[in-house]
Amino acid sequence: MTDDVNRQILLASRPDGAPTPANFRLAETAIPEPGEGEVLYRAIYLSLDPYHRGRMNAGASYAEPVPIDGVMGGGSVGRVVSSNAPGLSEGDYVLGYGGWQEYAVMNARHLRKLDPEVVPISTALGVLGMPGMTAYSGLMRIGEPKDGETVVVAAASGPVGGTVGQIAKLKGCRAIGIAGGDEKCAFVRDELGFDDCINHRRDDLGDALAAACPDGIDVYFENVGGKVFDAVYPLLNFFARIPVCGVISRYNIAEAPPGPDRLPGYFTDTLVKRIRTQGFIVTDFEDMRPDFVRDMSQWVRDGQVRYREDIAQGIENVPETMIGLLQGKNFGKQLVRVAEDPTR
Amino acid sequence: MTDDVNRQILLASRPDGAPTPANFRLAETAIPEPGEGEVLYRAIYLSLDPYHRGRMNAGASYAEPVPIDGVMGGGSVGRVVSSNAPGLSEGDYVLGYGGWQEYAVMNARHLRKLDPEVVPISTALGVLGMPGMTAYSGLMRIGEPKDGETVVVAAASGPVGGTVGQIAKLKGCRAIGIAGGDEKCAFVRDELGFDDCINHRRDDLGDALAAACPDGIDVYFENVGGKVFDAVYPLLNFFARIPVCGVISRYNIAEAPPGPDRLPGYFTDTLVKRIRTQGFIVTDFEDMRPDFVRDMSQWVRDGQVRYREDIAQGIENVPETMIGLLQGKNFGKQLVRVAEDPTR
Repeated sequence: MTDDVNRQILLASRPDGAPTPANFRLAETAIPEPGEGEVLYRAIYLSLDPYHRGRMNAGASYAEPVPIDGVMGGGSVGRVVSSNAPGLSEGDYVLGYGGWQEYAVMNARHLRKLDPEVVPISTALGVLGMPGMTAYSGLMRIGEPKDGETVVVAAASGPVGGTVGQIAKLKGCRAIGIAGGDEKCAFVRDELGFDDCINHRRDDLGDALAAACPDGIDVYFENVGGKVFDAVYPLLNFFARIPVCGVISRYNIAEAPPGPDRLPGYFTDTLVKRIRTQGFIVTDFEDMRPDFVRDMSQWVRDGQVRYREDIAQGIENVPETMIGLLQGKNFGKQLVRVAEDPTR
Repeated sequence: MTDDVNRQILLASRPDGAPTPANFRLAETAIPEPGEGEVLYRAIYLSLDPYHRGRMNAGASYAEPVPIDGVMGGGSVGRVVSSNAPGLSEGDYVLGYGGWQEYAVMNARHLRKLDPEVVPISTALGVLGMPGMTAYSGLMRIGEPKDGETVVVAAASGPVGGTVGQIAKLKGCRAIGIAGGDEKCAFVRDELGFDDCINHRRDDLGDALAAACPDGIDVYFENVGGKVFDAVYPLLNFFARIPVCGVISRYNIAEAPPGPDRLPGYFTDTLVKRIRTQGFIVTDFEDMRPDFVRDMSQWVRDGQVRYREDIAQGIENVPETMIGLLQGKNFGKQLVRVAEDPTR
């Protein structure tokens, strides 16, 4: 903590399709001063998440677009440098939404104090944070998993997908993951305890998924779209539920794919099979937070929900790491460490 | 009631696209005898409904396919001829699922006794029967209309659509109907009390609907699909709900329309706007029947929910009438009267 500049990742231009390094710029500014009721914290871990792609666009999404030359938003975990607010003191660990920068000033009301003795501070950005809450709330509120049902989720080695499958197992379901590569699939099966995991790079994805789901699919937690959805679609059972949490395969694509147009047929299937398809973002289900904190803290402490982190180093590597995340190169919750973590 | 034969409409062959008269056959059989616990009733009104189209197909739908040379199923209202069951006597009016035939034997457990003094017996096939319950359950359970919201429904002069809009009004919503022709639209506005009704034959359907929905659409009760859905789609608000009750525009079409493929984009919109799309059929919400009976009986008696019937005459005209129904030729709940109604 000897630098006296604040290094930030700005959005230099809006991506046309997949983002490139030229869409971002590393800037240096003065370290800001906290005003009354505010806190200055230095980030240790920055969170990189699929939703960041949407914020790079100008169009309406569920999040405000980041302005050109604005700091990319996002969660970070760090340590208080100076505080003008009661309840937070120098050296405290906090979760905030300071964005992709080394230092951030936030109103203390928007910071959550973390206890590094209980769980690793980085989990506040993963299994015990936004991704974990996304998995928990979407699966429980829309997916409504029931004992004996089959739950399928892609990006299964990631913080949302991995948590979805493990909660499904705790609810008595068969959990089938989909992930990119045999190493990730082995992790999903062997470490996270899914019943099976299919490599989406297989040519016979549809057949492999069908074999892994002999009783069809009751809940498909949608976070990727594309060919994974295409493999899932014919296997959907009557009364299937599809919480739509993300469509990462589409984030870099603006145009509709060629026909035929499957949308009318999807409505027919929706009717015949009484499928429920519902989009959500984590903040829609804020009422579930106390349940989430209670259940997930317990599950993580008991080892019933496990997780993996993929930690890159240095703020200058954030753009390349984000670009890789959208290509599925990460293996676990993607973080970028921008300062030493004294708790490890 | 002097004939001693039972005339029936059989499914002679499965339609390829739109049904034609050749897909049906009028047959004469002996009038069946009721066994123990059973009742023979003579139909007065046969119900013709859009869902009948699905039952003509061999493929899986939400209803069992009618076998070739089988009697087309469906509800009818009639009068007991002879009864071997306690609680039902000759001359009683009943609702049953005897299908498209003049006489039917049913277990008394599957018949509902009707009191012609309370409401017209034909309403047991319409606003107080399956269509009314469909409107009520789908709108209330999936649509969840809230005060001040905008509810859009097509086939608005029909028994489902007309009821949806009137319930929406009772719940404090703006109700916009879509119907085929100016006469139907005038009825929907002036008699049913919708805020507006748009003729779907207009070339500027999308613009007209947008003008009628200045605050967008919060609930779209889907019963037609096709160009009506296309007009609704861009107007859907954040957190819109789409109960999918039918897609009559698609019932005669097996192939997917040409591209581009809008399905991936629909999932993106589902996510961004948190749209809920859910199929249902009336029997899914049987738990709501007591509420439906209580509310709808009251509303009909008080004149708060109104309805219109389109009554064809003679069982031999059932096929042409059904074909016309699928073309939107009916104006109100389609019935075929196959015997005198002593209550009118």
